[in-house]
Amino acid sequence: MKIDYSLYAITERSYLGEKDLFEAVKEAIKAGITVLQLREKDISGREFYQQALRLRELTRAYGIPFIINDRVDIALAVDADGVHVGQEDIPAAVVRKILGPGKILGVSAKTAEEAIKAENDGADYLGAGAVFPSPTKPSSEAIGLEGLKKIKSAVKIPVVAIGGITKDNAKQVLSTGVDGISCISAVFCGNITENVRILKKLVSESRKT
Amino acid sequence: MKIDYSLYAITERSYLGEKDLFEAVKEAIKAGITVLQLREKDISGREFYQQALRLRELTRAYGIPFIINDRVDIALAVDADGVHVGQEDIPAAVVRKILGPGKILGVSAKTAEEAIKAENDGADYLGAGAVFPSPTKPSSEAIGLEGLKKIKSAVKIPVVAIGGITKDNAKQVLSTGVDGISCISAVFCGNITENVRILKKLVSESRKT
Repeated sequence: MKIDYSLYAITERSYLGEKDLFEAVKEAIKAGITVLQLREKDISGREFYQQALRLRELTRAYGIPFIINDRVDIALAVDADGVHVGQEDIPAAVVRKILGPGKILGVSAKTAEEAIKAENDGADYLGAGAVFPSPTKPSSEAIGLEGLKKIKSAVKIPVVAIGGITKDNAKQVLSTGVDGISCISAVFCGNITENVRILKKLVSESRKT
Repeated sequence: MKIDYSLYAITERSYLGEKDLFEAVKEAIKAGITVLQLREKDISGREFYQQALRLRELTRAYGIPFIINDRVDIALAVDADGVHVGQEDIPAAVVRKILGPGKILGVSAKTAEEAIKAENDGADYLGAGAVFPSPTKPSSEAIGLEGLKKIKSAVKIPVVAIGGITKDNAKQVLSTGVDGISCISAVFCGNITENVRILKKLVSESRKT
């Protein structure tokens, strides 16, 4: 299965304001995101499962790869296409074992060393970052465009940039040769359709050059 | 695999004070607990996994069934003997599916209806309660000895009583005919060896009558 990682959207309930998560995701899918990751914190396993089940149906209907953040059991429970784990989650090699070979495994990496290890551990793609400081990551943890390039050149698997990516810096980020940009607020804050339209245009332009 | 549920200990980091979790569990096992459940909240998946891995080795060495609370992925990752889920976790029938038939599935139940549903959904045993009010459960949620009897008589699978069980009320609880008592503080607060010795004596006496 060849995945288009170019516009990888991650849900974040706290950025949605009044919007319903399901409706917000549906709008983003219709507008053209290429991958959806469901990220949930501080809700019960039951709620996470139920939310994932609804989004599984939606993403299947639209043919969008559906990734669950962190919880491998939720991914298995709803037959998601894959799971994304960070360096603070169950180790990637163990996740690959319990997930089986047919599912997508994404791993977060902030250095070339972590990237190479993740690739060796069975990752199908990397979430590289945080590229820029963001509300959830202080600037000391940002790897910048240079850090991103180092990761990209260290591995053969696709690299998706994450962290502080906006319409204003997406072009720069894409110029590093990464396979996609991962966005939370840049997709879900404000007018989703318009956000996705602009980001897709930037992706499309970067591919021409 | 025939499990002895009679003295089912659940870890709770906040009750341990200065004690190391691994050492506390080792002492409890040596003193005679029959099942160990690892319950963790508010730690990363990586820490949960690492803790579970150490306790997996320990429980295997002593031949004690090892159950993980809530996180099916952690249970699969460390090859635990089973998983315990509550009514707020991934639904039992779904857990059974992703866990496979060879693992132990425990489900929390506070009514006969929940108990029957859990049994039908593939539970191997029930955690019935909270029997008494406890620091984590208000008295409005306590099912009492009558509630416990109703659950026990509603199902064929083993029933382990949980919630507020102490040395002072364990005899009463066991007199309802349940297959075991589940303890957190009654095992881990204070002198663990002495706690377990007294609880085992109560279990043993109740079996004679």
